[in-house]
Amino acid sequence: MNSMLKEDVKLSDALLKPKTVALVGISDDQSKTAGRPLHFLRNAGYKGTIYCINPRRETVQGEKAYTSLTDLPEVPDHVYVLTGAELALDAVEECGKLGVPVVTLIASGFSEAGQEGIVRENKLRELQAKYRTRILGPSSLGIVNLYEDLFLTANAAFAEPGLPKGNIFCASHSGSMIGSLTSRGRNHHTGFYGLVSVGGEVDLSVGEICLVTLDNPDIHGYMLFLESMRHADKLREFAVKAAELNRPVVVFKLGRSQVAADLAVSHTGSMAGEDAVAEAFFKDCGIARVETLDGFLNAIPLLSKVPSQTANKKQINVGVLTTTGGGAAMVVDQLGIRNVSVVSPTDETIAKLNARGVEVHAGGIIDLTLAGTKYEVMKAALEVLEEAPEFDLILVASGSSARYHPDLAVKPIVDSISTYKKPLVSFLVPDAPEALKQLKQAGVPAFQSPEACADVINAAFSRRQPMPIPAQVSQPNESTTVTLDEDSAYQLLRPLGIQNAPYQVLNVSQPKALDISYPVVVKVLHDQISHKTEVGGVILHVQNDSELQAAINQIKSNVEKHCPNLTVEKVLVQSMVKGLGEVLVGFKRDKDVGPIVMLAAGGVLTELYKDSSMRLAPVTLDSAYEMIAEVKGLKALDGFRGKQKGDLKAIAETVVAFSQLAVSKEYYIEEAEMNPLIVNPQGQGVTAVDALVHIAKEG
Amino acid sequence: MNSMLKEDVKLSDALLKPKTVALVGISDDQSKTAGRPLHFLRNAGYKGTIYCINPRRETVQGEKAYTSLTDLPEVPDHVYVLTGAELALDAVEECGKLGVPVVTLIASGFSEAGQEGIVRENKLRELQAKYRTRILGPSSLGIVNLYEDLFLTANAAFAEPGLPKGNIFCASHSGSMIGSLTSRGRNHHTGFYGLVSVGGEVDLSVGEICLVTLDNPDIHGYMLFLESMRHADKLREFAVKAAELNRPVVVFKLGRSQVAADLAVSHTGSMAGEDAVAEAFFKDCGIARVETLDGFLNAIPLLSKVPSQTANKKQINVGVLTTTGGGAAMVVDQLGIRNVSVVSPTDETIAKLNARGVEVHAGGIIDLTLAGTKYEVMKAALEVLEEAPEFDLILVASGSSARYHPDLAVKPIVDSISTYKKPLVSFLVPDAPEALKQLKQAGVPAFQSPEACADVINAAFSRRQPMPIPAQVSQPNESTTVTLDEDSAYQLLRPLGIQNAPYQVLNVSQPKALDISYPVVVKVLHDQISHKTEVGGVILHVQNDSELQAAINQIKSNVEKHCPNLTVEKVLVQSMVKGLGEVLVGFKRDKDVGPIVMLAAGGVLTELYKDSSMRLAPVTLDSAYEMIAEVKGLKALDGFRGKQKGDLKAIAETVVAFSQLAVSKEYYIEEAEMNPLIVNPQGQGVTAVDALVHIAKEG
Repeated sequence: MNSMLKEDVKLSDALLKPKTVALVGISDDQSKTAGRPLHFLRNAGYKGTIYCINPRRETVQGEKAYTSLTDLPEVPDHVYVLTGAELALDAVEECGKLGVPVVTLIASGFSEAGQEGIVRENKLRELQAKYRTRILGPSSLGIVNLYEDLFLTANAAFAEPGLPKGNIFCASHSGSMIGSLTSRGRNHHTGFYGLVSVGGEVDLSVGEICLVTLDNPDIHGYMLFLESMRHADKLREFAVKAAELNRPVVVFKLGRSQVAADLAVSHTGSMAGEDAVAEAFFKDCGIARVETLDGFLNAIPLLSKVPSQTANKKQINVGVLTTTGGGAAMVVDQLGIRNVSVVSPTDETIAKLNARGVEVHAGGIIDLTLAGTKYEVMKAALEVLEEAPEFDLILVASGSSARYHPDLAVKPIVDSISTYKKPLVSFLVPDAPEALKQLKQAGVPAFQSPEACADVINAAFSRRQPMPIPAQVSQPNESTTVTLDEDSAYQLLRPLGIQNAPYQVLNVSQPKALDISYPVVVKVLHDQISHKTEVGGVILHVQNDSELQAAINQIKSNVEKHCPNLTVEKVLVQSMVKGLGEVLVGFKRDKDVGPIVMLAAGGVLTELYKDSSMRLAPVTLDSAYEMIAEVKGLKALDGFRGKQKGDLKAIAETVVAFSQLAVSKEYYIEEAEMNPLIVNPQGQGVTAVDALVHIAKEG
Repeated sequence: MNSMLKEDVKLSDALLKPKTVALVGISDDQSKTAGRPLHFLRNAGYKGTIYCINPRRETVQGEKAYTSLTDLPEVPDHVYVLTGAELALDAVEECGKLGVPVVTLIASGFSEAGQEGIVRENKLRELQAKYRTRILGPSSLGIVNLYEDLFLTANAAFAEPGLPKGNIFCASHSGSMIGSLTSRGRNHHTGFYGLVSVGGEVDLSVGEICLVTLDNPDIHGYMLFLESMRHADKLREFAVKAAELNRPVVVFKLGRSQVAADLAVSHTGSMAGEDAVAEAFFKDCGIARVETLDGFLNAIPLLSKVPSQTANKKQINVGVLTTTGGGAAMVVDQLGIRNVSVVSPTDETIAKLNARGVEVHAGGIIDLTLAGTKYEVMKAALEVLEEAPEFDLILVASGSSARYHPDLAVKPIVDSISTYKKPLVSFLVPDAPEALKQLKQAGVPAFQSPEACADVINAAFSRRQPMPIPAQVSQPNESTTVTLDEDSAYQLLRPLGIQNAPYQVLNVSQPKALDISYPVVVKVLHDQISHKTEVGGVILHVQNDSELQAAINQIKSNVEKHCPNLTVEKVLVQSMVKGLGEVLVGFKRDKDVGPIVMLAAGGVLTELYKDSSMRLAPVTLDSAYEMIAEVKGLKALDGFRGKQKGDLKAIAETVVAFSQLAVSKEYYIEEAEMNPLIVNPQGQGVTAVDALVHIAKEG
């Protein structure tokens, strides 16, 4: 089917380097949204051919207007459709018939616009499937390539001359943000290769667009402004390849708070999912996530210098050098809040500094005070710290001199950056635009905001090498999801190496003598009862045979009262085990990011404190240990306040084993949970005392 | 003794409106720190008289130099001493003898500089006590009054012409920050009346300086940059009076993270205390606290419009109006993270908007899209929202039009602000300096950073009316602190209305029959054993008389083994009570902020999650309910997930009662704790099952 498309035009070229563009529905009024792209392209000096399509006019903004795409002397590489939704569908069909490689739609009125819109979107998808013309949008404000003067956009920001050119490619769910990021980028000396507003991603997504740009040597890093996790598979594919090419990727994702996720339904009708899932996804894809807008705009230079970490690596330590204690303390505070380790110089380093004529006292921040405004003092200090093994990153906080003598104050940093053996970061305490410019032009990761500075350092240190993408396992055709009873669930988990407390299944009409010892818990066993406690189906602390019989009778009576259509035929009798604590281990398939594993401390407080950690499945042992470290409540099992240590190793191994549910070729698990998993003392393992598995069954 | 001081010069005038200043140790080189103040004062056009003191020169920077202060033709209102520490002491003595009202010291080398420095600081304090000359510093970079062209400072930032003048007074522990805040203020259109670097606060403190400026009608608000909580009493006195005068006070305090508190020992030798204590202090003083530097610089305009809240007031709700969904969502996200409530318009409001020709859809943010860039649409929307009862504050997020048509885009806001019936806040999504200027000049609280915008809205809503300052209770002279045994502790708490579980004290040599019922806990009773468990002094679940006797013997043996010098004579036998949960209620006297009460959820997890709330003592019932709401773990006792409700009312009443320990005239409690306090079901109160009291005893 690809043969229908115009030959020899790569997708990346059609998107970012089209030789011919057509503007469908272009308005004669350049101030109107539908008139802007022609004005912007001409204004920018785009060298390719532009065709205007407007059946109601002879000319548009002084240029010849064609009646339709079919009237053009050639098939354009890229068509931007500026009409409303209904006419846009016609235009897409026309593009399809002509074999146009890419068509971009500005129209809204698709899936976000109720039933009528959903019908339109389905039609759009059908057209795409039929003709294979690639679609950018709907609701796309277009695409910009500053190297090619391609301002194929209706975003008002691109009327401006002298936009900041650089080596970053930015993809955004929000169309307005590509303009705001450009205007803000200017102040931060953050320059773009190009920007794209992906809109509703009915076809081309953030991930796929970025993926096809990876062959472009002028792009050195990526900024992604995300409102949802739609098409996460393509995003992951892109992120893994970007990491191989050492191209840093930074994301600013909306929906960190639930209120925002609930309220901020984007104009494209998508909605942010659970943020912790996105967080896990970014980590396992090697994408750095920032929390602040200024951090987003300033992350790439530092990410280019800090390699991705492997899980469970040693603590990374920051050293702080300053001429102004109070100013530097602002960043140290922000680093501390984010649990980034800031350390003091060793006595040896202090001695070396003093030997070089740099007077510093022991402890804390290395405060050179006014002496640090002298070039040779700051330069000597930087040289000593470059070799000091206690620091992995050096942060220099410059005071007033950065504003008044930028050429002197930041020159030692500028002169050091190209050969410095560790990441070097600048924070400017006063407003110091000229110093910022000099630093940025020299490639120094430099910040004016203490929050953004700490945010980016933390994001860089938190960035992990991407996990390999596992083979896809998909739900069998014509299958339905059923729940396994507890006995079957244990049997499914046991081959993974997951231990459960000893149990026996008894037939309620013919109870046998127990092979396991008292006390026991008695639980109803039925594949239609997931929540046993809620139907009175669990009795604890059963001490002997007569209590056992009474418990069985009681459960039968309770359950049959709650569920009149069920008959209790079996119970599961299990030894009562008591460990040092309990955890929850869960597995689910997120509709966007795929299989994911959760570890959480057990009990109600966990839910109150939202104390859990997630990773994409399958999970490595190193990642599992990181998850344990991320669950605060588990410190109680790690010798906190002299308490006995729990078997954290067994937790980690169990998380790894459990995560294999994601890739099994034997069965397709939709969701599974062990709650609780009892944690025994160190060396004595963990024991599942309940298990719930939702599995796909054919037929 | 005040009669020794120069007559008729108010402290506020000597600080901020001196008619004569003298510069001791002023250098001929205006580029040197010790040469700057003369240059800056002349540069700024200061109208008062300046005397230069430099015994080694005839002239300084072209002006006559005097040999000493005593040679001057008059006693100056304010002397700035620019020498090192030793000479500074001489200068202070000279000032004292002459009756100079205020002397400011730039020198470091006092208490932060080891033993020698401590000796100097003591000398300085003696001189102050002897002569009553008020001292600003040491380590003070001086004081600036932009209305009087008084640039009595060595901070390099004040060489700059056209510094932003306004109505804010800024007091800072960091001397460099007064310069950086000024340069940053320019970009934010934040103008200052004056700024002071308070340095080591050996005499004049942030609080006292601000206090004496309250009679100045040109000061409308206060910005405090704090590194420590030193002199909190004066700060509180100031804050309470500022609130009476409706002058907002915003604080940016370092030391939010422990690492910063540990590392960032300031150049004045002070160290930030526990941040939660400072947080409680600010809340009870009616001071707004921000977390971001940009928020600090932009807080006053909004604080001026949002009245301080009373504790336990109804939820405050934000409505968001925008022309750009993605941009607005950035602020909504930040508000959500801070638990600020963002709500959707009601159907009635939507109907009213539609009736005014403003097209909006139900749910979420009120997104006017491109239509909102029209003046009449935005103005109509603002008018409807002004009357909409569901919103307490309206936030307008403006898109690209704010950059390209500032006169149109933000004019509806500018035109509304003076009479708007609720707080109105602007967030600019693109970089839009001209729009920002117009908004700020009109008095609109306007922000360029989504984090700062949410930070300030949250700080404004979190600001409480200050608590009245309780009568001071001080430790009796010649008293020492002793620990009460558990029995005595209960007896002290009982008159406050605090219930304990029933108990009996038994003499180990002559045990009596019990009046309370089994099971009981047996605990060693001794005023020298605070941590009973650690010495084997507690035995739980004692079921009968023989077990009781065994427990007593066991405790006697355990304790006497652990503490060979003690003899166990008594035990406390207490009924074992089991509630729905437990809390910790504590009281201590912080060395800076004074008596303070803590409520925390019980157990080890609480410590892991740092889940507690603090308030200055005494605590009101409304504040106690707020504390309960701030302890996340207590949601488990508030019907969470259908669990039985605990007696939260009794917790609140107990916190209030316990906080009376702060103001007792009968005794002086140093520290006290009930851990745990058992929480019974709703209506059944709370029960102390342990109590520890440290009390001052005379002699």
